[in-house]
Amino acid sequence: MDYEKIYARKAPDGAERRDLKRISDSLGEKIRSLLSKMRVTAEVQLVGSTSKGTNLKGGDIDLFIVFPTSYSRSDIVKVGLKIGHMILPDGQEKYAEHPYVFGYVEGHKIDIVPCFSMKENDNLKSAVDRSPLHTRWVNANLDDLKRKEIILLKAFMKGIGVYGSEVSKGGFSGYVCELLVIRLGSFQKVLEFFAGSEKRLRLTQDHPSPIDDAPMVVTDPVDRKRNAAAAVSMENLARMRILSREFLNKPSEEFFDGFPRKSPPNIPRKTCFRIFSLERPDLLEDVIYPQIEKLRKIIVSESRNEGFHPIDSEIVFGRRINILVELENDVRPAIKIHAGPPAHSQETRKFLDKWDKSPHVRGPFIVDERPVVEVKQVSRFNDVIISALRDKDIGANLNSVKGSIRIYSVPATKEQRDLMQKYMTRNLTG
Amino acid sequence: MDYEKIYARKAPDGAERRDLKRISDSLGEKIRSLLSKMRVTAEVQLVGSTSKGTNLKGGDIDLFIVFPTSYSRSDIVKVGLKIGHMILPDGQEKYAEHPYVFGYVEGHKIDIVPCFSMKENDNLKSAVDRSPLHTRWVNANLDDLKRKEIILLKAFMKGIGVYGSEVSKGGFSGYVCELLVIRLGSFQKVLEFFAGSEKRLRLTQDHPSPIDDAPMVVTDPVDRKRNAAAAVSMENLARMRILSREFLNKPSEEFFDGFPRKSPPNIPRKTCFRIFSLERPDLLEDVIYPQIEKLRKIIVSESRNEGFHPIDSEIVFGRRINILVELENDVRPAIKIHAGPPAHSQETRKFLDKWDKSPHVRGPFIVDERPVVEVKQVSRFNDVIISALRDKDIGANLNSVKGSIRIYSVPATKEQRDLMQKYMTRNLTG
Repeated sequence: MDYEKIYARKAPDGAERRDLKRISDSLGEKIRSLLSKMRVTAEVQLVGSTSKGTNLKGGDIDLFIVFPTSYSRSDIVKVGLKIGHMILPDGQEKYAEHPYVFGYVEGHKIDIVPCFSMKENDNLKSAVDRSPLHTRWVNANLDDLKRKEIILLKAFMKGIGVYGSEVSKGGFSGYVCELLVIRLGSFQKVLEFFAGSEKRLRLTQDHPSPIDDAPMVVTDPVDRKRNAAAAVSMENLARMRILSREFLNKPSEEFFDGFPRKSPPNIPRKTCFRIFSLERPDLLEDVIYPQIEKLRKIIVSESRNEGFHPIDSEIVFGRRINILVELENDVRPAIKIHAGPPAHSQETRKFLDKWDKSPHVRGPFIVDERPVVEVKQVSRFNDVIISALRDKDIGANLNSVKGSIRIYSVPATKEQRDLMQKYMTRNLTG
Repeated sequence: MDYEKIYARKAPDGAERRDLKRISDSLGEKIRSLLSKMRVTAEVQLVGSTSKGTNLKGGDIDLFIVFPTSYSRSDIVKVGLKIGHMILPDGQEKYAEHPYVFGYVEGHKIDIVPCFSMKENDNLKSAVDRSPLHTRWVNANLDDLKRKEIILLKAFMKGIGVYGSEVSKGGFSGYVCELLVIRLGSFQKVLEFFAGSEKRLRLTQDHPSPIDDAPMVVTDPVDRKRNAAAAVSMENLARMRILSREFLNKPSEEFFDGFPRKSPPNIPRKTCFRIFSLERPDLLEDVIYPQIEKLRKIIVSESRNEGFHPIDSEIVFGRRINILVELENDVRPAIKIHAGPPAHSQETRKFLDKWDKSPHVRGPFIVDERPVVEVKQVSRFNDVIISALRDKDIGANLNSVKGSIRIYSVPATKEQRDLMQKYMTRNLTG
C-alpha cells in the first residue's frame, strides 16, 4: 500500500494550498478593514480543516467573525450578514445555528460565519462558537506528520461512506478524525482501534461521558461534557469497524475511492415494492432529513404492524422525497383474529355480547385462555397504509406536504429508478 | 331454568338404572365364582360413575378385580384377561395402564379391569388402582341431592365440550365433577366458582399442590399429592369459566345440548389452506393423540419460522389423521436477509470472506451493527415444509407413517371436508 500515492491524490497540491492561503488572507484583511470601518471590535479567524492543514482536495474556506460576548446575537447576525454580502456579492444566506452567508471565490466555497468568543469548557451560546476553539486546540496539538495521517483517515472514511456529520449521513466529522489521530498517533493506529474487539468504543480520557449510550464516545477536549462523535450512527460505526478490519487484512486503494456497486443476479424476488413520493419542502437538509427518516420508520413500522411484513427500505431525496419499501406481500388476509379479555375477567360477558350483535366471520371461539372472534379487515396495502399515515405526525414540515404523497409500485421517474438502483446495488459502503 | 326437566333428560331413567344394577350384580357374581374356582383371593368391585349413582344416560359398567399386593402385575393381568374373556365372549382387549377386556352386554359397555388393592395416600402401583378408592371416598361423601347436582354438572360440561379427561379432550373427568360438587355444594355453586374473577382456580384444602403450574388444581382427597384436574387444558378451563358466566347470566338448555354450529359469511379470505393427511396407526387414541398434537405444533411452528405466517390450525382423526393449517401465504419471498456477526467481532472477516466466494443476491451491506447478505431461498410452502418435516421427530408411532403424509390445498375426502367444516364453524364449545 503506497500511502504517499494516496496522499498525493487526496490532499490539495501546492497550487491549491497557495490559492487557499492567498484567498483566505485577502478575505480576512477585507473583513478586518470593514469591521474597523464599522467600529466593531471583533476578530476574524480562519477555522475548519483549511485552517488546520487537514483539508482534502477541494476544501472550503471557513472565515469566522468572532465577537465579544458583550454583543447580542441579533447584532452579530446583522453585522455578519452585512459583511458577508459585501465580501461575497453573489453570496447566499444559509441557516445553521443562525444565518450566515456563503459564496464562491475562484471556485472555492467560502463561509462567512459570525460567532461569540469563548474559552474552553465555557457554557457555549451556540455550537458554532466552538469552531475557533477546535481550530486552536487542534493546531496546538498537531505536527505535519499527523496532518498527513488525518488526510489519509478522512480520505478512507470518505471512500467507505462514513465521513460527514450532517444528519442525513450520521458519520464522522473532520474534527473527530483529527482527535482520533492526535489521540491514537496515526492512520494505521486509528484503523487498529476500530478493528479491535472492544464492544464499546470510547475515547474519554477517563472523563466518563454523560451521554454514554451513544454508539461511540469521543470526549471533546475543549468541552469535556460533549461527545464529539455524537453524530456517528450505529451503522456507520459498524461500517468503519468492519472495513477497518478488512483494510488492515488486505489494503487496497478501493477503500479510498469507494467500492464498485454490483447489480445482483436478476432473479424473481417474489416480493412487492412500493415507492412513496412526496414534495420536498424548501428547507435545509439537516432540518428535513430527520422528518424523512421518521416517515420511513413510520412506513416500515405500520407495514409491519398491519401484517405486510416489510423486508427492507431506502431513502433518496432529490427534487422530491422518495422512500422505497420492499414487502413480502401487498395483499394481507381479509380476516383477522381479534382477542377478547382473559377467561378470569368479568369482561368476557361484554365481549361476547358485543360480538353477538356485531358482524364477524368465524367465532367467537376459545384460543388459549381468551374468547376470540374473527373479523374482516381491509386487505390491500395501499388502502391500509394511506389510512394509517393519515393519523400520523410525520414532523412539522412533512405534515404540510402529506397530501402530496403518491405511492408507486414500479419506479416512475429517474429519481425513483435511481432509488431502486441504490437499493438493489447496496454494498458495504451504503 | 327447569333443572328437573334437564335432569330427567340427562340422567338414566328407572329402567336403565335397574338394568345396570341387574347386569353389574350378575357379572360381579360370575366373576366372584370364577375367582373362587381359580383359587384367587381377589375382590370384585363396581367402580366409576355407575357405582356412585352419578352416571349420565348410557353410562358404562366398570368392574374392577382388586388383588392384594402380594400378586405380581403379570399375574393380575393374566387372571384379569382370562376372566374378562370368559365373562365377555365377544370382548376385546384394550390397553390403559395395563391390558384389560371390554365388551357389551345388552347394549351396555362393560370394562373388566384388574388392579391392586390400595389404601388412601399409599404410593400407587398404577393409576387404575385409584379407582376403587375414588368410588369409596365419593360414596362416603355423597347424598342423593348431590348426585343430582353432579349429573347436572356433567351434562353441562358435556354440552359445552369440556367433559372427559382423555388426552385428546383435555377436559374434566367425572371424578373432578364429583369433587367439585362435594366441595362446593351444588351445580350452581360450581358454576359460580368458575365464573369468579380469581386468576388461578385452586381447590387444594390448604394442601399446596406440588404441580401448581397446571391451569387448575383440585387436590385428590385419596392421594393428596395428586392434582385430580391435571388433565384440564387451559382452553377447556377458559371455556368452562366463560360459559359458566354466560349461563349464570342467561341460563338456557342450549348449554346442556351443545351450541349450534353456524357457517360464517362466505367472503374471500385471501389466505391459503393446507391439509396434511397421514395414515392413522392402529393404536389407542390416548397414545396416538399426543403425537398428532405434536405434529400439529411442528407444522405450525415450522410454518411460522419459515415465514408463511400461520393463522390457525385444526385436527381431526378418523380413518386417517388430518391436520389443517391456514396460512397468510403459500409463497414466501425468494430471498432472505442473512445476518453476520456484530461489528466488534473478529468473525466479520470470515463472514465477508465466505460471501465473497459464495453466490448471493444483494450485499453484503450493513444493517444496524452487523454485516448482512441477501441469499436465495425456496419460496413454495410445500417444498419448504416437506423438507422441514423430514428432519423432525414427530413421535415414535407417527415417525413410521411419515412417508404417508400427503398435502392437500383443498379438501379431497369426506373427512377433510368435515375438518374444514369444523374449522369454519368453530364456536365457543370447540
